[in-house]
Amino acid sequence: MTRPASSDGGVSGTRVRPARAGHGGRRPGTSGARGAILEAARHEFATSGYDAATIRAIAARAEVDPALVHHYFGTKEALFLAALELPVRPGEIFAHGMATGPDQLGATVVRSFLTAWEPPENRVRLVAMLRCATTNDAAMGLMRELLARDVFGPITTALGLPDASLRANLVGTQLIGLAVMRYLGRVEPIASATVDELTVMVGPTVQRYLTGKLG
Amino acid sequence: MTRPASSDGGVSGTRVRPARAGHGGRRPGTSGARGAILEAARHEFATSGYDAATIRAIAARAEVDPALVHHYFGTKEALFLAALELPVRPGEIFAHGMATGPDQLGATVVRSFLTAWEPPENRVRLVAMLRCATTNDAAMGLMRELLARDVFGPITTALGLPDASLRANLVGTQLIGLAVMRYLGRVEPIASATVDELTVMVGPTVQRYLTGKLG
Repeated sequence: MTRPASSDGGVSGTRVRPARAGHGGRRPGTSGARGAILEAARHEFATSGYDAATIRAIAARAEVDPALVHHYFGTKEALFLAALELPVRPGEIFAHGMATGPDQLGATVVRSFLTAWEPPENRVRLVAMLRCATTNDAAMGLMRELLARDVFGPITTALGLPDASLRANLVGTQLIGLAVMRYLGRVEPIASATVDELTVMVGPTVQRYLTGKLG
Repeated sequence: MTRPASSDGGVSGTRVRPARAGHGGRRPGTSGARGAILEAARHEFATSGYDAATIRAIAARAEVDPALVHHYFGTKEALFLAALELPVRPGEIFAHGMATGPDQLGATVVRSFLTAWEPPENRVRLVAMLRCATTNDAAMGLMRELLARDVFGPITTALGLPDASLRANLVGTQLIGLAVMRYLGRVEPIASATVDELTVMVGPTVQRYLTGKLG
């Protein structure tokens, strides 16, 4: 997620070999390359799994030199975390929901979550996450880390209740299941329901998990 | 799921070649072989994915002749559905819940679902399902069929409400997400919560999805 401090010009000039003849016109190290690498990584992780996905294959798909991938992301592990970064920032959604009104928190969380996942290009992350997590223990560990740091941590901190991490987990179960059924499984009728409809139906569940009586 | 009418003795006598020397003592076609094939199939689908899993490899792992696999299950597709058969029978759970008391339906469904998935040997089905569904469109189609026939169909029929299939889908989102977080991701603290605790926390969600006001 963090980006090296050096400018793209410097990267392009000092670290990256120029596109070589016979390699199909690799992109130079412009800022667009970073996005192309992330997109290529999501595709490779989703189609090949964590073990089989290589920096070399990701670089080839992004049409950049492998050295640029290493420069931007360092290790395959770090690239995995960056590529699968959630399209939502739970901390921000949460802050927004609290500002809008604590009784609308559940609806805000559900709407923001669905809106972020709706674009088809974001769904490939879900497939990549699940595929890597089901096939590789290291990827599963990274996923757990990502969820703890970017999802459950911020929500737990914001809630500030003794059972906040359990509440955050419960919200996770509902939202992950919704994403799996709607975007991965495309199970009907949930796949064709609108975001508005789902917000009304699932919002109260999330609201209770966050602020209601659990026991 | 259906089993051929012919007896195991007949199978063993007429369709299955005897264990061959040099193949490590394959099991004869006893009734235990069917279970061994299913267990082997779950392992192969979970570790290799749908495409790479072969009848030959499954037979080798089960220590039976490939002909016996074909005899019991016919196609790889049918074997996949049989191997991934849910460890719960939603129709039965539902009937039991309605008998116990309609206001306890959510709690009964959650408790039965969790109890069925608790044994570690059942979790491999979850991994196999998700791995195959994320890597193969045909497997995803089969999964969708399985859910429609064995989960959403029976619940929809039992509920008998105009929006019953949507309600069944919503229950599915909550339970699938719970299984993914607890059994696949082993995310804490939900992974260490007891079945009793989860039943109390998640039961009301399922209850509302089944019988409550959704809009």
